[in-house]
Amino acid sequence: MSRIITISREFGSGGRELGKRLADALGFAYYDREIITFISEKSGLAESYVESVSERGIIASIPLTYGRTFAYDIAPMHPQITVFIEQEKLLHELAEKGDCVIVGRCADVVLADLKPLNLFVYADMDSRVERCMKREPEEHGMDARTMRSNIRRVDRRRASLRGLYTHVKWGDKSAYHLCINTSGRSIKSLIPAIVEYQRAFFNERS
Amino acid sequence: MSRIITISREFGSGGRELGKRLADALGFAYYDREIITFISEKSGLAESYVESVSERGIIASIPLTYGRTFAYDIAPMHPQITVFIEQEKLLHELAEKGDCVIVGRCADVVLADLKPLNLFVYADMDSRVERCMKREPEEHGMDARTMRSNIRRVDRRRASLRGLYTHVKWGDKSAYHLCINTSGRSIKSLIPAIVEYQRAFFNERS
Repeated sequence: MSRIITISREFGSGGRELGKRLADALGFAYYDREIITFISEKSGLAESYVESVSERGIIASIPLTYGRTFAYDIAPMHPQITVFIEQEKLLHELAEKGDCVIVGRCADVVLADLKPLNLFVYADMDSRVERCMKREPEEHGMDARTMRSNIRRVDRRRASLRGLYTHVKWGDKSAYHLCINTSGRSIKSLIPAIVEYQRAFFNERS
Repeated sequence: MSRIITISREFGSGGRELGKRLADALGFAYYDREIITFISEKSGLAESYVESVSERGIIASIPLTYGRTFAYDIAPMHPQITVFIEQEKLLHELAEKGDCVIVGRCADVVLADLKPLNLFVYADMDSRVERCMKREPEEHGMDARTMRSNIRRVDRRRASLRGLYTHVKWGDKSAYHLCINTSGRSIKSLIPAIVEYQRAFFNERS
């Protein structure tokens, strides 16, 4: 069985960097935005549309008459639902390919049967604002208050998206094996401990 | 500055075992029940009384007239308050002595100025019931339902005790650097990762 590490994260907590560094340290495949590109290629839907649905969830206001037929037996199917079906299929395909780190996409719930290691990465608001300011050059002009409000909006979106998959709340620590606070920490410095943690985790699982 | 590791834990999660094993692995002092004994010796109050106050908090029925006289030279002092004052003093004394692991006693809040590493240890209810059944031979006859209700009672007590020290809720992950789920895990297997984690933590702090 593949060793799968899923990473759920608060916006601005450095979860994506942590995932990438962890994958590099372990020699695992890393999947994040790649998932959007794959789904876009497979479904013929624009990347920006796939990304929007994948990160916002199914939006109630889109007219139900706006349907399309796809390669599935059930037609017509709403393109938003297509994104989710493709995403679930793709996550399973990627998981079967071999050891990997998957960021976001509710992969911890979708792939639960494959017994992944589920990490949650979080930080206090000041650290998140600081991290966002540093990594988004185009947002350097943004004041901290606006950034804070952006962060809260993305978090709400992630929490509501998770509600499509499970009744366990986003960020509720019971859903994760390890919750890692990155406030004031360099992500790089956290990697050796997580490498050690996953070694023991997958040893005990097998 | 001493390296202090505080451990808050859900009842039955193995937090105490984790603390002891971690202290042994690091060669740090370990403080848990020892704190009760010290306070009992110093205050002349019975160990069972000190333990009860230390773990249950100040009971609401104490006359409010006692509430405000916190300095040592003002007497008479209610023995329950004495326990808390002695406990805070003792925690600081122990912290000054050198590197240590402290289980419970809201040490993460009391010693916040000393920048401790704060761990929270938790597990799902089934794992906690199983762990409690194994470790308490005299409770082997207890059915799982009664054990569950015991576990919930202790957790409520810990949560309410924490309310004396801070508005951040007990178990809220924002208060901790790392939250460790022990469900279905051997505590021993978790130690090397935490040893690695604390090394990086104290390196970055200094």
